Amino acid sequence: MKHLEEQTIQKEKLFSGKVIDLYIEDVKLPNGKTSKREIVKHPGAVAVLALTDENNIILVKQYRKPLERTIVEIPAGKLEKGEKPEYTALRELEEETGYTAQNLKKITAFYTSPGFADELIHLYLAEGLTPLEEKRDLDEDEFVEVMEVPLQEAQKLVESQEIYDAKTAYAILYLQMQKALEAKS
Amino acid sequence: MKHLEEQTIQKEKLFSGKVIDLYIEDVKLPNGKTSKREIVKHPGAVAVLALTDENNIILVKQYRKPLERTIVEIPAGKLEKGEKPEYTALRELEEETGYTAQNLKKITAFYTSPGFADELIHLYLAEGLTPLEEKRDLDEDEFVEVMEVPLQEAQKLVESQEIYDAKTAYAILYLQMQKALEAKS
Repeated sequence: MKHLEEQTIQKEKLFSGKVIDLYIEDVKLPNGKTSKREIVKHPGAVAVLALTDENNIILVKQYRKPLERTIVEIPAGKLEKGEKPEYTALRELEEETGYTAQNLKKITAFYTSPGFADELIHLYLAEGLTPLEEKRDLDEDEFVEVMEVPLQEAQKLVESQEIYDAKTAYAILYLQMQKALEAKS
Repeated sequence: MKHLEEQTIQKEKLFSGKVIDLYIEDVKLPNGKTSKREIVKHPGAVAVLALTDENNIILVKQYRKPLERTIVEIPAGKLEKGEKPEYTALRELEEETGYTAQNLKKITAFYTSPGFADELIHLYLAEGLTPLEEKRDLDEDEFVEVMEVPLQEAQKLVESQEIYDAKTAYAILYLQMQKALEAKS
């Protein structure tokens, strides 16, 4: 698929932050013309679909400054340097929910905003949940409220747009699909 | 959920681009301490799950500079100023695929990266597809290759990670779910 590629002519770093970096790249388009691309670099993240033995999903309420609102998401967090995604997944689950998991299984991975950012989210299914004896601290700028809801209830939160987040909507749909397949077999 | 809110103390615009703007905000956290938030502002976008009468999905291959690779996605594009999402959806479908649609139905909407960006994607289902007599131009910096694949084939593209994009993975799962429900009833 070489014929669709864009070649970098010049690259400028405009910002280097705690979470993201911003670059402007001058690129040569497939037709030989040039254009500019605005590119956000992100370290990548994990998200965890945590299922209790009673088939409840663990969700977290969190204020998201970019949206200026509180939304409901599955536990998630960005990769620390050199950290393996499955380690991050377990750490974020433990920090945000107070649970640890016996079984952690990779479901999939996806880019969230390929038009302007390179963020890749690794999605895990966590089962065999048990409460931690000693709670782990959240990041010092992180405040969340934990909810435990049956799948049907989660579906209602999607309809009422309290769940309004791509990874969470995907995870709920994934779980519904699994249940539908189980019911069929 | 006031107790989770973060108050803006100060806001600085660091970059204003064609696609995104970048802000740094000093915020007051729920515990009274302060922190900085890196925030990408995006106009929002649409994505279109386009289904032919033969139950094929229309996909587009596109080089995504932030990822430095070509990926396969459902047709999508950002909202132009003042444009209604359903209009954008039809326009992007027509520009990127050469098809127009008789029926356009909103499936859902979701934030793609609530941790650092406010991008909201409106997802539509387009059916009753017919080829346009006169093709519409793509944006001048846009180059895509159209593919038409059966649902099962799309599933394989997910497994081979040629489909590796949140909105597209969600759309394919949504369609599988619809088919599973139809098969059940």
